[in-house]
Amino acid sequence: MNKDLDLVKNYQKEVILLGETAALLGWDQKTYMPEEGIKSKSEQLVLLSKLIHKKITSNELFSAIKRLRKKKLTDSDKIMINKLYKDIKKSRNLPEEFVIELSKASSLGGSAWEKAKEKKDFNIFKPYLEKLVNLKRKEVNYNKLPGHPYNTLLDDFEEGMTVAKLKPRFDILKNELILLLKKIESTELYKKQKDTILKKSFNNDLELEICKDYKNRIGLNNNISRLDLSMHPFTTTIGIKDIRLTTNLKDGFFNAFGATIHECGHALYIENMPDKYEYTILRESPSMGLHESQSRFWENMIGKNKSFWRFYIPRINKILKTNESLDNTYRGINFVTPGKIRVESDEIHYCLHIILRFEIELGLIEGSIKIKDLPKIWNKKMKEYFNVVPENDAVGVLQDMHWSEGAFGYFPTYAIGTIYAAQLFNALKKQFPNIEKDIEKGDFTRIINWLKEKIHDKGALYKSDELIKKICGSGLDPEAYIKYLNDKYKEIYKF
Amino acid sequence: MNKDLDLVKNYQKEVILLGETAALLGWDQKTYMPEEGIKSKSEQLVLLSKLIHKKITSNELFSAIKRLRKKKLTDSDKIMINKLYKDIKKSRNLPEEFVIELSKASSLGGSAWEKAKEKKDFNIFKPYLEKLVNLKRKEVNYNKLPGHPYNTLLDDFEEGMTVAKLKPRFDILKNELILLLKKIESTELYKKQKDTILKKSFNNDLELEICKDYKNRIGLNNNISRLDLSMHPFTTTIGIKDIRLTTNLKDGFFNAFGATIHECGHALYIENMPDKYEYTILRESPSMGLHESQSRFWENMIGKNKSFWRFYIPRINKILKTNESLDNTYRGINFVTPGKIRVESDEIHYCLHIILRFEIELGLIEGSIKIKDLPKIWNKKMKEYFNVVPENDAVGVLQDMHWSEGAFGYFPTYAIGTIYAAQLFNALKKQFPNIEKDIEKGDFTRIINWLKEKIHDKGALYKSDELIKKICGSGLDPEAYIKYLNDKYKEIYKF
Repeated sequence: MNKDLDLVKNYQKEVILLGETAALLGWDQKTYMPEEGIKSKSEQLVLLSKLIHKKITSNELFSAIKRLRKKKLTDSDKIMINKLYKDIKKSRNLPEEFVIELSKASSLGGSAWEKAKEKKDFNIFKPYLEKLVNLKRKEVNYNKLPGHPYNTLLDDFEEGMTVAKLKPRFDILKNELILLLKKIESTELYKKQKDTILKKSFNNDLELEICKDYKNRIGLNNNISRLDLSMHPFTTTIGIKDIRLTTNLKDGFFNAFGATIHECGHALYIENMPDKYEYTILRESPSMGLHESQSRFWENMIGKNKSFWRFYIPRINKILKTNESLDNTYRGINFVTPGKIRVESDEIHYCLHIILRFEIELGLIEGSIKIKDLPKIWNKKMKEYFNVVPENDAVGVLQDMHWSEGAFGYFPTYAIGTIYAAQLFNALKKQFPNIEKDIEKGDFTRIINWLKEKIHDKGALYKSDELIKKICGSGLDPEAYIKYLNDKYKEIYKF
Repeated sequence: MNKDLDLVKNYQKEVILLGETAALLGWDQKTYMPEEGIKSKSEQLVLLSKLIHKKITSNELFSAIKRLRKKKLTDSDKIMINKLYKDIKKSRNLPEEFVIELSKASSLGGSAWEKAKEKKDFNIFKPYLEKLVNLKRKEVNYNKLPGHPYNTLLDDFEEGMTVAKLKPRFDILKNELILLLKKIESTELYKKQKDTILKKSFNNDLELEICKDYKNRIGLNNNISRLDLSMHPFTTTIGIKDIRLTTNLKDGFFNAFGATIHECGHALYIENMPDKYEYTILRESPSMGLHESQSRFWENMIGKNKSFWRFYIPRINKILKTNESLDNTYRGINFVTPGKIRVESDEIHYCLHIILRFEIELGLIEGSIKIKDLPKIWNKKMKEYFNVVPENDAVGVLQDMHWSEGAFGYFPTYAIGTIYAAQLFNALKKQFPNIEKDIEKGDFTRIINWLKEKIHDKGALYKSDELIKKICGSGLDPEAYIKYLNDKYKEIYKF
């Protein structure tokens, strides 16, 4: 046996076990923790992240990795070692004072953002955001990648993706979405449409029963997963056979069900990762975008598909003792409305939101946008892309918390995932042209197996865009998504 | 500031934070974890205990403590440093190979015990118990205390307690309990008594509501505590303001309520520990016995008191929509029955169970009892003390798991706590002769404040027996408990 390889695997295992431990603390905080437990919880989480950081950046580990890079290894070990080398080198390039400064700025930024949002006043948040953007620009210099300075930040979440590749694709998508929106908005059906059923509420216990039934149906049984309630839906890995999902019933049943379908997409990916890479970086998704492609695939391509509702409407009516019609539900689920809030928006507005943020992030990192101009620029872009202007900063530039935590480069992965999802569904339909017949019967076996074979089984062996290219014939390409949206909404809004 | 003192306090804080983290993992395992999560959970817990052990036994910490022992310190810092010195020296005296061997033997012992209990066959467990007893006898030699070899093991759970002090007191109690049992068993009421109400079941949600209402009533509100369900009731500290309690409804409402009262006693102690000793060993109970005195105080002295039921019976009848009578409930709660099982036994049988185990532990550690004779000796003692013989080993010598985990010296703390509880109630009644009027009104304020002032506020500043002496005039003394039992059961069984 290779002693260095054992050491590296042991380090990874310990880091992953500590990460899972932290994940349980986070899950607990958002589900069952008594309110005043937060102080101890924060101290425990800070200690765990200190221990993890210490392990990841240890000289012992890095030396072993450097030696292993010169050795002959199996293909998968080679990929693992190279990935670790890259990640750890990045971490080690950041001076400790910088890491502490950034961590403090993120923590202060979070509180300032909360207050600013509450008071609907960007100025409260402004100095903190300024600090954070300056630090992120500094961070870029510690780990300079070729091309646009934003590439360094993007690479943290979407390895291999660059501004040069992403921007033209987002531009195409943006123009098509704006065009499609205009078409929809000019239809009679759009002008006459009334409140959506999305927010309708029924009996909470029964609503949860339907959500849990769905979770079990796609293979996430109760021996390996749970579904609980939390303020914001999320999925987290507590262990190899322990995945926790949450949803929220406060915004109505159909929203909760949609969120559950989304989270189950993440959870299925986690559950189906290859066991042979247990406790290594290879048993993880290669990027946030690919992870999001799995949740979006189920949420949009399956869960907003008419065949899906052919199966689910009778079940829902039976359990909730309601009498919802297929057509009304399907249209309600897919209502297009001028969405000022990203998390509440429909399939068309959603990516526009992301592209707007991406453009602003680019400007902030390259220095062409000044923080003080942010609300103005935000509102101008909203007017231009959405034809609406937020009534205040809380529902405008302050709506998302990501920047307050220093997460720049993260937003694009939401749209990347959405685009990949459409490409994947396209590839699936090419292989199984009659797949919607399965969906109508609530039989997701072929879909699950196909995703497992094509994506889940690969772990982190390939970069996301390479893997998508292998499956779909091309890397990130908005064409399939654009066609899907046009076909679907033409039929719904009859233009 | 003293650099060494800061270092020691920081170590303690990190050890406590990691301990609380492990406590959350344990709580989760017993409440909400999906079944198959156990494998990862075990690995996470092993890692945490490794990290804790490494911190506790580090040279850096021990050197600082040794230097501090020669320095002038405040009284409380001095106590803290001496306690830490003693604990850490004990740990450091155990060779690493020994610790690993013991940990393996405990783990194997646990599984073997489970199997043996299931098959009702002591022989399956025998070789594992032999190994464990040999290791514990070895452990004694690494940390030899004066007097009986058992003292070393006892001291781990009940600092300062010795066989020389404990044995004569247990002997007195044993004889009195056997005598009292004979008196009760000869009464007409005993001979005629029918099934107890203890196991009666009602609506589970309402039962839980009553338990939660009690928890809140004694000051454990939902912002700082939770009550959940688990197989065995327990209490655990997840953080400074985060205490988790559990109960179990499967053995009937009155059992569940009694268990809740017991656990709330532990939780109240934890909650009321002095904040000024936050994240140090001084914000802990000085012994398991004193902790148990707090749970037993509420469970027995308050929760089995007639005044308590004067308040609770109307409330329970209202919530459960039942019509239980005060007398019937009070008698039912206090039924004396020939209890072969410790955890199911009444106030009289309970301590007899403990004393039986204590006598056997003494024999095993001093070498006067051979493992192979255990079932025979067990059954002989059962016949002698209880006048019953277990029908098989599962409900006899195999009924408790403690020995299978190598926990020798732990059992006595259950009886010590029970005796202390009676001494404390005696002292309380001396100070407030009309305290039962408060209890009748469901007003526990004076009791809670008294316990806080006398016990909780002291943290670990005093050894348990010293503290009890300060409050009650004498250290461990079964007299109050004996008198309490005689008075109470004379009235109930009319002898």
